[in-house]
Amino acid sequence: MTVQKYKEIHLVNRPEGMPTNDDFRFVEKEIPTPGENEVLLKTLYLSVDPYMRGRMRDIKSYIPPFQLNQALTGGVLAEVVESHSDLFETGDIVSNNLNWSEYNVANAEKLQKIDPTAASITAHLSVLGLTGLTAYFGLLDIAKPQAGETVVVSGAAGAVGFIVGQLAKIKGARAVGIAGSDEKIDYLINELGFDAAVNYKKDSFKEDLVAALPDGVDIYFDNVGGDISDAVMNELNKHARVTVCGAISSYNSVDGDVGPRIQGQFIKTSAMMKGFTLGDYSQQLPTGVVALTQWLQEGKLKYDETIVEGFENTPDAFFGLFKGTNLGKQLVKVADPEFAKL
Amino acid sequence: MTVQKYKEIHLVNRPEGMPTNDDFRFVEKEIPTPGENEVLLKTLYLSVDPYMRGRMRDIKSYIPPFQLNQALTGGVLAEVVESHSDLFETGDIVSNNLNWSEYNVANAEKLQKIDPTAASITAHLSVLGLTGLTAYFGLLDIAKPQAGETVVVSGAAGAVGFIVGQLAKIKGARAVGIAGSDEKIDYLINELGFDAAVNYKKDSFKEDLVAALPDGVDIYFDNVGGDISDAVMNELNKHARVTVCGAISSYNSVDGDVGPRIQGQFIKTSAMMKGFTLGDYSQQLPTGVVALTQWLQEGKLKYDETIVEGFENTPDAFFGLFKGTNLGKQLVKVADPEFAKL
Repeated sequence: MTVQKYKEIHLVNRPEGMPTNDDFRFVEKEIPTPGENEVLLKTLYLSVDPYMRGRMRDIKSYIPPFQLNQALTGGVLAEVVESHSDLFETGDIVSNNLNWSEYNVANAEKLQKIDPTAASITAHLSVLGLTGLTAYFGLLDIAKPQAGETVVVSGAAGAVGFIVGQLAKIKGARAVGIAGSDEKIDYLINELGFDAAVNYKKDSFKEDLVAALPDGVDIYFDNVGGDISDAVMNELNKHARVTVCGAISSYNSVDGDVGPRIQGQFIKTSAMMKGFTLGDYSQQLPTGVVALTQWLQEGKLKYDETIVEGFENTPDAFFGLFKGTNLGKQLVKVADPEFAKL
Repeated sequence: MTVQKYKEIHLVNRPEGMPTNDDFRFVEKEIPTPGENEVLLKTLYLSVDPYMRGRMRDIKSYIPPFQLNQALTGGVLAEVVESHSDLFETGDIVSNNLNWSEYNVANAEKLQKIDPTAASITAHLSVLGLTGLTAYFGLLDIAKPQAGETVVVSGAAGAVGFIVGQLAKIKGARAVGIAGSDEKIDYLINELGFDAAVNYKKDSFKEDLVAALPDGVDIYFDNVGGDISDAVMNELNKHARVTVCGAISSYNSVDGDVGPRIQGQFIKTSAMMKGFTLGDYSQQLPTGVVALTQWLQEGKLKYDETIVEGFENTPDAFFGLFKGTNLGKQLVKVADPEFAKL
């Protein structure tokens, strides 16, 4: 009997600035046999997400840093290919935080089985997964959009942002996106129904932004930080709410992240800003999944994915997040299922 | 019959940087006779407050700018010396926003009579007035201190800050003040019962701050902004709340107010920050006055005032706010009452 091999991706250096291939290593391992109550999982898709850059630094944060010479972990959609548990059969699909690896062995009790008939399975890594839920709680619980208000979202064509804008529309608000290419601007307005969208890479960005905001900003959902956010902060209305979800513009910064202090503007406008991570909502996630599933099935919520084929292209897909190459959620397709009919 | 004269203070230049005497002019006027339903008010005390610096700029904010060659306005405690209204008798004391002037004529219906037996009358310009109420709503409504939490307040020996720290203690929290002299540090700890206080003018400020915060920061009540706030932001605990009340360090700045962006820290800690002005609570002010009066009468709340004598010294008292010369509320005593027995 041949021993089957598989690969997983280890972090071998803590990147300075933009990560490179030298920071990762593909390590070959032998596929193990699952123990009692364990299952063997074959990775079908994996998710690359900007927050992972933070975990590559050796600093205290809301989530522990990745360990050097250990597998990276992230959102994985996998098929049960061998089960030593009553909870799962071969062909079941799970969505969990697992190693960036072609195969995982996991305790069955920790796995979350998904219903492949409710939506396409990849939706569980995007609109029904961490990024969709991040949009849901960050916008609806923290910022609480009201009909007629203006919601601005940065990183608007990204995995969280494109859901935020659509949720704003569902709530009767005006959605204004900020993104980095004319293709994305066109997508936001003409495919997703944003009311306006502004390309931050144009010299006229600040004027374009002001022109897109005739009634100012009631809500700013910030995925990006930096100069883009500085510009939006100048346009806040009285009692504005700012949800701070991400600051991708600074994740690879080696210098400090310095800019105009915003406190004076917050006094003038009585504005509120709140940072969050999805962990704050760990008890409420099912509520979000139910709501998002319903809007998806009603056709009120569209979702797009940028899918890179091949496990070996995972680092490139990750780097692309910082170059803005993705439209909607960035996924990597690792393999087709062996048993499941999808 | 001699016509009586009085003086009022006009803004004649919009200051660049720190205001000077050249920005103000004392203008002599004749005391008018009040019309029907009006009263003539003699100023006893007036309040100088940092927020007035903002109104000296010609910019849009939460409150309109002062007009050039018109009287400045602010908190005034005055005695009714002539009444053409059934609502007031001579000797009544009012506390209102009025001209910086030795006399004012005002519509009786717009005046707020105070009870001079409940507390010393000057309390109505400090602990029971705008600054006490600012501390009350900014701390208790926005930041909501819980027993055992750590509350840090900057400008801790100032008119708002010294109330904030005492309210934190009343709520069972740990109060840590930041102030600018050893005399103030001593006052905060030994007179007001703060648990710790740190002098920001010392080279060891950052180390001293960290040492004073063994359990981090749950609440930061910010009156000052700038480098001091940058240092506090680094120590925020998970789910910290930041009340932004003032940014006195930047009010005279002619360059921009630039520093480390705080959004990354807010993501890590799920912190919340909210700016406010007392206008946000215009319907709830009586609730605050009742609570503060009760704590005052129970001896749970002390208050101190720095009183400059003489109307002609009003500009100097105002300049002093930016030099930190005041301990507690800065007032100017303009005159003794003619009728009231206080």
